Amino acid sequence: MKILVINGPNINLTGMREKGIYGNETYSDICEFIENFASSKGVKTEITQSNHEGAIIDSIHSAVGNFDGIVINAGAYTHYSYAIRDAISAVNLPCVEVHFSNIHGRDEFRTKSVIAPVCKGQIAGFGKFSYCLAIQALLDIKGEN
Amino acid sequence: MKILVINGPNINLTGMREKGIYGNETYSDICEFIENFASSKGVKTEITQSNHEGAIIDSIHSAVGNFDGIVINAGAYTHYSYAIRDAISAVNLPCVEVHFSNIHGRDEFRTKSVIAPVCKGQIAGFGKFSYCLAIQALLDIKGEN
Amino acid sequence: MKILVINGPNINLTGMREKGIYGNETYSDICEFIENFASSKGVKTEITQSNHEGAIIDSIHSAVGNFDGIVINAGAYTHYSYAIRDAISAVNLPCVEVHFSNIHGRDEFRTKSVIAPVCKGQIAGFGKFSYCLAIQALLDIKGEN
Amino acid sequence: MKILVINGPNINLTGMREKGIYGNETYSDICEFIENFASSKGVKTEITQSNHEGAIIDSIHSAVGNFDGIVINAGAYTHYSYAIRDAISAVNLPCVEVHFSNIHGRDEFRTKSVIAPVCKGQIAGFGKFSYCLAIQALLDIKGEN
Amino acid sequence: MKILVINGPNINLTGMREKGIYGNETYSDICEFIENFASSKGVKTEITQSNHEGAIIDSIHSAVGNFDGIVINAGAYTHYSYAIRDAISAVNLPCVEVHFSNIHGRDEFRTKSVIAPVCKGQIAGFGKFSYCLAIQALLDIKGEN
Amino acid sequence: MKILVINGPNINLTGMREKGIYGNETYSDICEFIENFASSKGVKTEITQSNHEGAIIDSIHSAVGNFDGIVINAGAYTHYSYAIRDAISAVNLPCVEVHFSNIHGRDEFRTKSVIAPVCKGQIAGFGKFSYCLAIQALLDIKGEN
Amino acid sequence: MKILVINGPNINLTGMREKGIYGNETYSDICEFIENFASSKGVKTEITQSNHEGAIIDSIHSAVGNFDGIVINAGAYTHYSYAIRDAISAVNLPCVEVHFSNIHGRDEFRTKSVIAPVCKGQIAGFGKFSYCLAIQALLDIKGEN
Amino acid sequence: MKILVINGPNINLTGMREKGIYGNETYSDICEFIENFASSKGVKTEITQSNHEGAIIDSIHSAVGNFDGIVINAGAYTHYSYAIRDAISAVNLPCVEVHFSNIHGRDEFRTKSVIAPVCKGQIAGFGKFSYCLAIQALLDIKGEN
Amino acid sequence: MKILVINGPNINLTGMREKGIYGNETYSDICEFIENFASSKGVKTEITQSNHEGAIIDSIHSAVGNFDGIVINAGAYTHYSYAIRDAISAVNLPCVEVHFSNIHGRDEFRTKSVIAPVCKGQIAGFGKFSYCLAIQALLDIKGEN
Amino acid sequence: MKILVINGPNINLTGMREKGIYGNETYSDICEFIENFASSKGVKTEITQSNHEGAIIDSIHSAVGNFDGIVINAGAYTHYSYAIRDAISAVNLPCVEVHFSNIHGRDEFRTKSVIAPVCKGQIAGFGKFSYCLAIQALLDIKGEN
Amino acid sequence: MKILVINGPNINLTGMREKGIYGNETYSDICEFIENFASSKGVKTEITQSNHEGAIIDSIHSAVGNFDGIVINAGAYTHYSYAIRDAISAVNLPCVEVHFSNIHGRDEFRTKSVIAPVCKGQIAGFGKFSYCLAIQALLDIKGEN
Amino acid sequence: MKILVINGPNINLTGMREKGIYGNETYSDICEFIENFASSKGVKTEITQSNHEGAIIDSIHSAVGNFDGIVINAGAYTHYSYAIRDAISAVNLPCVEVHFSNIHGRDEFRTKSVIAPVCKGQIAGFGKFSYCLAIQALLDIKGEN
Repeated sequence: MKILVINGPNINLTGMREKGIYGNETYSDICEFIENFASSKGVKTEITQSNHEGAIIDSIHSAVGNFDGIVINAGAYTHYSYAIRDAISAVNLPCVEVHFSNIHGRDEFRTKSVIAPVCKGQIAGFGKFSYCLAIQALLDIKGEN
Repeated sequence: MKILVINGPNINLTGMREKGIYGNETYSDICEFIENFASSKGVKTEITQSNHEGAIIDSIHSAVGNFDGIVINAGAYTHYSYAIRDAISAVNLPCVEVHFSNIHGRDEFRTKSVIAPVCKGQIAGFGKFSYCLAIQALLDIKGEN
Repeated sequence: MKILVINGPNINLTGMREKGIYGNETYSDICEFIENFASSKGVKTEITQSNHEGAIIDSIHSAVGNFDGIVINAGAYTHYSYAIRDAISAVNLPCVEVHFSNIHGRDEFRTKSVIAPVCKGQIAGFGKFSYCLAIQALLDIKGEN
Repeated sequence: MKILVINGPNINLTGMREKGIYGNETYSDICEFIENFASSKGVKTEITQSNHEGAIIDSIHSAVGNFDGIVINAGAYTHYSYAIRDAISAVNLPCVEVHFSNIHGRDEFRTKSVIAPVCKGQIAGFGKFSYCLAIQALLDIKGEN
Repeated sequence: MKILVINGPNINLTGMREKGIYGNETYSDICEFIENFASSKGVKTEITQSNHEGAIIDSIHSAVGNFDGIVINAGAYTHYSYAIRDAISAVNLPCVEVHFSNIHGRDEFRTKSVIAPVCKGQIAGFGKFSYCLAIQALLDIKGEN
Repeated sequence: MKILVINGPNINLTGMREKGIYGNETYSDICEFIENFASSKGVKTEITQSNHEGAIIDSIHSAVGNFDGIVINAGAYTHYSYAIRDAISAVNLPCVEVHFSNIHGRDEFRTKSVIAPVCKGQIAGFGKFSYCLAIQALLDIKGEN
Repeated sequence: MKILVINGPNINLTGMREKGIYGNETYSDICEFIENFASSKGVKTEITQSNHEGAIIDSIHSAVGNFDGIVINAGAYTHYSYAIRDAISAVNLPCVEVHFSNIHGRDEFRTKSVIAPVCKGQIAGFGKFSYCLAIQALLDIKGEN
Repeated sequence: MKILVINGPNINLTGMREKGIYGNETYSDICEFIENFASSKGVKTEITQSNHEGAIIDSIHSAVGNFDGIVINAGAYTHYSYAIRDAISAVNLPCVEVHFSNIHGRDEFRTKSVIAPVCKGQIAGFGKFSYCLAIQALLDIKGEN
Repeated sequence: MKILVINGPNINLTGMREKGIYGNETYSDICEFIENFASSKGVKTEITQSNHEGAIIDSIHSAVGNFDGIVINAGAYTHYSYAIRDAISAVNLPCVEVHFSNIHGRDEFRTKSVIAPVCKGQIAGFGKFSYCLAIQALLDIKGEN
Repeated sequence: MKILVINGPNINLTGMREKGIYGNETYSDICEFIENFASSKGVKTEITQSNHEGAIIDSIHSAVGNFDGIVINAGAYTHYSYAIRDAISAVNLPCVEVHFSNIHGRDEFRTKSVIAPVCKGQIAGFGKFSYCLAIQALLDIKGEN
Repeated sequence: MKILVINGPNINLTGMREKGIYGNETYSDICEFIENFASSKGVKTEITQSNHEGAIIDSIHSAVGNFDGIVINAGAYTHYSYAIRDAISAVNLPCVEVHFSNIHGRDEFRTKSVIAPVCKGQIAGFGKFSYCLAIQALLDIKGEN
Repeated sequence: MKILVINGPNINLTGMREKGIYGNETYSDICEFIENFASSKGVKTEITQSNHEGAIIDSIHSAVGNFDGIVINAGAYTHYSYAIRDAISAVNLPCVEVHFSNIHGRDEFRTKSVIAPVCKGQIAGFGKFSYCLAIQALLDIKGEN
């Protein structure tokens, strides 16, 4: 199984940014952690990050034929990017939305995801573990699509 | 680690009810599946179900001193039971909200959880696996509280 | 044909409560009236009442295999109990929502029923006759489901 | 007892229109069915239909002194014709609002009736039987006004 | 000066309808009263009434070249007839909106007029005198347009 | 008959302020015009103006026992002063709300009057004539209260 | 191919009305222009106009069996006539909504069409050419229904 | 005078729960404090607590004929239980709503009480003293009902 | 203990105004009643009243250093005076909001207090006793700030 | 005449994506079809596509001096890109908004275009023909700007 | 150049009030600071403060003919005083709205200014420096009006 | 002190675009003007512009360690880019939001900034001077962070 992990805007600053919410580990530490977890499950991952909405859409498009599923943390785009939503909907691969923090317990505007309706599901609130749980979820539901 | 799994209204009908959304397995099959998963992780679980909002609150209260965490699928109460929210907030145990279906992609009223803000996080959309992922999540974040 | 009649919160006080709206007859007078009407149509009825949302859900569940249809006056739960809605939806029996008063002409919050979308139809405004009309309606549409 | 049955816009197309919602019988079949039912109850009916909001108001006015009650299916005017509402309110005859389909379970805009608050009650969801139930309801509440 | 007075739906029932709000005088008494007032001011009036939105629009169109101003009581159409609004706007004659009752102190939906923005002004709350005041107003502002 | 005319904030600048909307005449010209009109009708008037919400309330209170009616142009307070509303409601004198401009055709916030519901009626859009029409209206409805 | 062109309220005044928005040509000039265009494409057209909502519905009904498509400019009814919407939906002919002006760039209330959801598409902003484009569109999509 | 004190969901955890908001005293300490205060005023009290909405309704019903007034802290049910509202309204006993904390200064959803409109009044923000003040209030207004 | 009692707009008319809501006693009767109650508790009070929002703010400012607490009935300003709210917040004295009537059971606009969030608590619905209860409340919570 | 055709996010996937809505033809088939149509009308076109909002804005800027008009299908950006709106508004070239599908009959969020108010008009619902109609529209209104 | 600086409610308490937001300096320190800054720029200032909405309006009126511009910090009136808005609009002097704190990052109700639309601009968030920046801004744009 | 000035979409067209709002000077004239002002204050500036949301976020990230503050005119992104908001929040440098025009007096959608809550403050309405005032503001508040 090959999974594309897509990180959206500002996630590259993890470890430097609002540590109370996002913790102290750097972005590359976290990437390594996720890759190790995936490997241990026999899953191949590629992790990308971009601050550009268009680049995230390009990534999603590029997954067709190359990956079996997508894990996406679209950062703040989660809350307004109907274009990313349409991309996920268009490529028709199982996709899991993840968030480090519990978006339902922060600013009002963060409680609504415009992307979630076209994903398989959403996992939020468990820091870097959210990614591992999402990879596990894709394994669990494999064959169900 | 001991985890209390609380199921809310109508979940006892799983397997009989809207199979397109909830699947074919019966409620007891699912309970067994969850317990087996937990055992394999060295976690002890107790699974309860009630259609009564008050009984769910009583369960949450009863967890104090007896369990290390809660996994809750509050069914439709998720969307309006501020009383369950207050109960979770009061007992101060790590709690994970789960849902069989992806609540963000169904009726508008199901996209809002009044409980999520006081939980550690939310996992939705992976059928019975949502529960396993929630148990895993509680293991992952143990010691972080 | 066997029909379960479910009455929700405060309906047991009919005859004692806001007589301008609900009339003078006592709850048991009304139950008797409904049962007599049903008998005259060859319908067997069981009438239950509870102030507990959970008990109403339990009743709905218990109808499976025992009744051919449900007449429900969910009282104030009509306006916010998505859990009762899910129960009706889950048991998949023809259900008619009734109200003594014309809920569309009272407080704003009473004009919206969260239950009606999963019922066959709604009958409101005809006092105790609303129940008879609902029983008649279930007879009329029998075989249509 | 004499009852005026008023049908609003597009109801003349019943049987040709959206059969999934409105069924296969033609409008004149339905009219005949209603008249037969009424006769069997000793009620005289006149059934009118118009696509013109003004003509419906004229009909309502004409009922004064000629009929003992009104059954109205105002079609889409149900949802915005405050002028029809005022007409019903002005003539001061018992009026029952009916609908073929369960308007509470369709488009959002159909769940609100601006006419219902000035009617005796509302009956929705039972196809042609909605009319019979409404006639029965007017008989049931006769003398109560 | 020649003024067209247009009355909308249900106004023909004045004197028969909700007397607490609209008073006891019949519609023809009121028409006579208005005509007498106008005559005393040297104004020629024509008074029309229709329950049909389209007929009211036709009347407004017919005023072009035949009248110097319009007094309109559009009844319930006041609150939703953007078509009447467009008609007034199209004919470009000074128009005064009137109401028997104080629409700002009744149902919420009556407080908004979609017609008022394209009229010279609005006079509400003075029963039949509202019409006289409107005629006076047209005289007062003559030459200002 | 004695009528108190109350003008609210910024009305003293009439003639200096937004002439496109309010015209060229000065505030004192307009006061004189109104007083002359009133005299010609045998009405005694006192005209006050204040930019202070509290002073306007004091004026309304002072009318009790000294005046038979009130004409009020509350300026921008019209749209939010529930305190002026309560004052009018408390003194229980017939009160007519007036405006120079047609408030229904300007900014959205100007279309709502919180004062109108407790007045006899509202007259808007006729410049200084609005005041004369209001005085006439109070004469017309005298004895009706 | 035979196409029915239906024009709603106030469109007969085109050329006399708000010329900044609707231009100088008279309504009959425009009708002729449209018919000529249609002829040049081998399409037979009938153009109707009414200020009456009910008459527009009657027209739509009359198209069944007589026309292959409808082009409709419902004027202000576009924004609130759910009855016209239901008529279009009932007759099940391909229908294109047109507007002279760009309704999305004018008053807020004009940006919403209640008719568009049941049409094939909407063309707005090109004056009389909107009609020609709509006829072309019906030709383009013929056979696709 | 006999007063029934009804406590809703989670109030039994007072002293264990969010101490910053609710203080350190245990629930039974507070019950004792209230009873002592009542005794000192010659009032007999019975204090009940339940997490079940239905049980609270049952309690309210049971007050008829047994108590002269009700003090209710409905906890989170305050904000959505129209069923409790109807119960209070049905029994027609003077009822005072109380809250430990100042609900108007916390989460937005806590600022609205659906129960308050059918109570005599509301007292919020004074911890355990809110109950004493409510008992005093019932004494103060005795005879006024 | 010294308490400043501040009364807002129109409260000086109590006894003359809407007696169904506010009762028959005059404002000075009520002031005397409050002062007597306070004296009996060993509390010194000063009672002020103004219809001017600014004067109420000045009073609040003047309390600093001269009083130990404030009881405020801001009348209609309760619902929109963010300036009074800021004043209370600025002086940092314990403040209790009071109302004669149960504001939660009257007009919608009266159910929201913009002042309450910065007060210790709110007491509404007990007529003149609301003031006594507020004074008692300030005594009860003394030392808690 | 030279026209720039700009396609927004995910439109490159046409033919692979949601075929029920967008049809089976590939994006390059459609581009060729549009270019052929344009050529047949003597119009030169350049067709661009980007998933990047900024790149679309850059394209619009680049049209100044190089093209006589723009046809834009901004995909999901249609519904929230005020930046694209500002770009269109800034370059001051005639622009027509197009959509394959009838956006007025799909998800609620798709019915609002933030771009339309600054375009000449909008054409939606005719698949690839929408583009041809837009090119025709630009030809039709040439010289009118 | 002569500039009138107007301070609204509670600003006189600066230095005593919520120091976390407004800092420690007293109001008179700040006035002196502003005057010194202005002097250094060759600008004459007069600084006024009032808690009375009406007095602020009077001040604005008094600026006509005496000052070349206004700097206003309307405190909480910023958010609801349409009367102050009208005053600024009426006197037609360049006016700059200032705030000590960043009103866009505090309570929701503070993010909306009803005054800003009729000012030249708004400067918020820089403490006492906001005033200096505003004076500088008036110098910068002099001659532009 | 080193300040990064970031300009968002369409600002490069200043001088070509809507001159009534943005003036005649070209973008490079304005950049030069700002740089000269900054130099005169001893501040080093770098001015960037991009139409790409992602590029703006990248710029903000790049400021860490290289600049002491940011001045940002995010153009239309101001109103919806939560991703830019998160970037500003993440880098934790003092940031001032600026606008050429008074955004509070234009389209409704322009009055809300999602970026302002995480900036030090906002300066809007003074054309190119807004930038100078922002630079001055950063100097004024230096050391305060």
